[in-house]
Amino acid sequence: MAEPRFDVLGIGNAIVDVIARADDDFLVRHAMRKGTMSLIVEEQAERIYGSMGPAVEMSGGSAANTIVGVASFGARAAFVGKVRDDTLGRVFLHDIRAAGVAFDTPPAPDGPSTARSYILVTPDGERTMNTFLGAAQNLGIDDVHAETIAAAAITYLEGYLWDPQNAKDAFLEAAAIAHDARRQVALTLSDAFCVDRWRDEFLGLIRSGIVDILFANEAELHSLYQTADFATALAALQKDAALAVVTRSEQGCVVVRREKTESVPAFPVERVVDTTGAGDLFAAGFLFGLAREHDHVTAARLGALAAAEVIQHLGARPETSLKRLAEENGIPT
Amino acid sequence: MAEPRFDVLGIGNAIVDVIARADDDFLVRHAMRKGTMSLIVEEQAERIYGSMGPAVEMSGGSAANTIVGVASFGARAAFVGKVRDDTLGRVFLHDIRAAGVAFDTPPAPDGPSTARSYILVTPDGERTMNTFLGAAQNLGIDDVHAETIAAAAITYLEGYLWDPQNAKDAFLEAAAIAHDARRQVALTLSDAFCVDRWRDEFLGLIRSGIVDILFANEAELHSLYQTADFATALAALQKDAALAVVTRSEQGCVVVRREKTESVPAFPVERVVDTTGAGDLFAAGFLFGLAREHDHVTAARLGALAAAEVIQHLGARPETSLKRLAEENGIPT
Repeated sequence: MAEPRFDVLGIGNAIVDVIARADDDFLVRHAMRKGTMSLIVEEQAERIYGSMGPAVEMSGGSAANTIVGVASFGARAAFVGKVRDDTLGRVFLHDIRAAGVAFDTPPAPDGPSTARSYILVTPDGERTMNTFLGAAQNLGIDDVHAETIAAAAITYLEGYLWDPQNAKDAFLEAAAIAHDARRQVALTLSDAFCVDRWRDEFLGLIRSGIVDILFANEAELHSLYQTADFATALAALQKDAALAVVTRSEQGCVVVRREKTESVPAFPVERVVDTTGAGDLFAAGFLFGLAREHDHVTAARLGALAAAEVIQHLGARPETSLKRLAEENGIPT
Repeated sequence: MAEPRFDVLGIGNAIVDVIARADDDFLVRHAMRKGTMSLIVEEQAERIYGSMGPAVEMSGGSAANTIVGVASFGARAAFVGKVRDDTLGRVFLHDIRAAGVAFDTPPAPDGPSTARSYILVTPDGERTMNTFLGAAQNLGIDDVHAETIAAAAITYLEGYLWDPQNAKDAFLEAAAIAHDARRQVALTLSDAFCVDRWRDEFLGLIRSGIVDILFANEAELHSLYQTADFATALAALQKDAALAVVTRSEQGCVVVRREKTESVPAFPVERVVDTTGAGDLFAAGFLFGLAREHDHVTAARLGALAAAEVIQHLGARPETSLKRLAEENGIPT
């Protein structure tokens, strides 16, 4: 087995976030469910944008945010995702490369425009997302290059990829290539609604060992096992997954292995501005820790640190070097 | 004279800001002069963007930022400026209307793309701007509607309009319409380099009374009178202008009238994140104060408050209601 060229490679929807503040009334008026991601078509996107307040545009996408976080820790990171060759596509491409991530998926020359997610941030810092998938849904098997996947120690996939059929095929192809090359496959469940759409298939991925490392937050875990009882869900997860991390916001996280579970506290935060990217950046730190062969608790602390950084400002990508931040906090990098 | 329909109408370059953090080395390597605005052509824009770090896109433009600030104080505000009918043009249009500003200038169906300003924010919070004017330079006399200008108590113009010939014509036409309707005309000198390009013409505007209210920062004032001595420059200004405000960063501002000058302190600020928009938002508060017929010191305090808000976060537009902020600080609105 050759030395990996990348520590972590992510595959996900390539999305530009359009972020605006909104009050709770706005969500109610538009029948949005706080804290979740809804898929919308272009007409809905226009309607939501038309009624939203002034916005900021920033590159986003769950796995892309994670990969940028991995790079910010100083690791070798790569991303696979589909944009259109348009203004927002160029923004996405610029930002991910400027963050030090290898990104070579060719933009689509035609077809739907680059994916946008309208993110409404309420005064409590919670974010509610409405995503028009656009070009991202045309990510396909052709975009998954065997030599790139085989060159990454960990391939990280987002559950959102399960929504478009092409992306799902690409997901499974990538997982097969990774395992053939004796690499690891990680998955984030992405969103409780997404789990609700694909529950049985996600359980299949975990139980069959297609996924080696699983990330879930509490809502996603409850949705996966259809129970409101955390202990019940955790026990079920412990049976199904070789290694999983359940994130619990300000209650920190639980690292779940067959032989034991370990709780790691959240990092103290002065003020939560925008929770967008909290889970994505937790995964960044944890995956970086695994790539550096740190123990799981250290990896979880790196995750907690990165999540704490990203929720203290608007947007889902780190504003400061996570490597330096870890060093300042005495966590090994 | 009919009751004005707008408190303040602004005319300026309609620009989307592309904001990234950069270190001082970056500015040196690209021969940029800190704190100034340079005009660039599209090829330079591509080159700068290619070497910049990850960025955020937000609507900007000096006079546009001011007008959004005026609206945030709760006044009736309008803007005139030119975008192209492209992605960034739609972003600009959305954001200014979502801020409550009347904006009806038709976007250009073809020609150069919407103006972008690449803004590099250094660790000291200073911003250095490189602007590709694009569609903005095609703002012309046809975009200046007599009934709209005549309906505004104050028409506010940016010095940057002096760069493209069409916009300069539109500027002079607007000033003539405003004065015919017995309204007031305000001007910001915009940038020390801009003053250097157009010194004699700006002095002509002030001395001839085409401009009733002048905004300048220290660097612009020094450039206008070509002296490094503040007292000398201030004395010259006092002779030339009926009403002027000179902003001096953390030293507050000086309100200059023929009969006296008054100093007003800056608002205390916890941490300067990004000085972009400081002058624009000062002008917003001052113009709002004038429109509400407050005394000049109160108007300057409103300006200082708005400037303090905008330098504590990334981007040149207020993130919170300036009306509420003024109320919280006991300043009349």
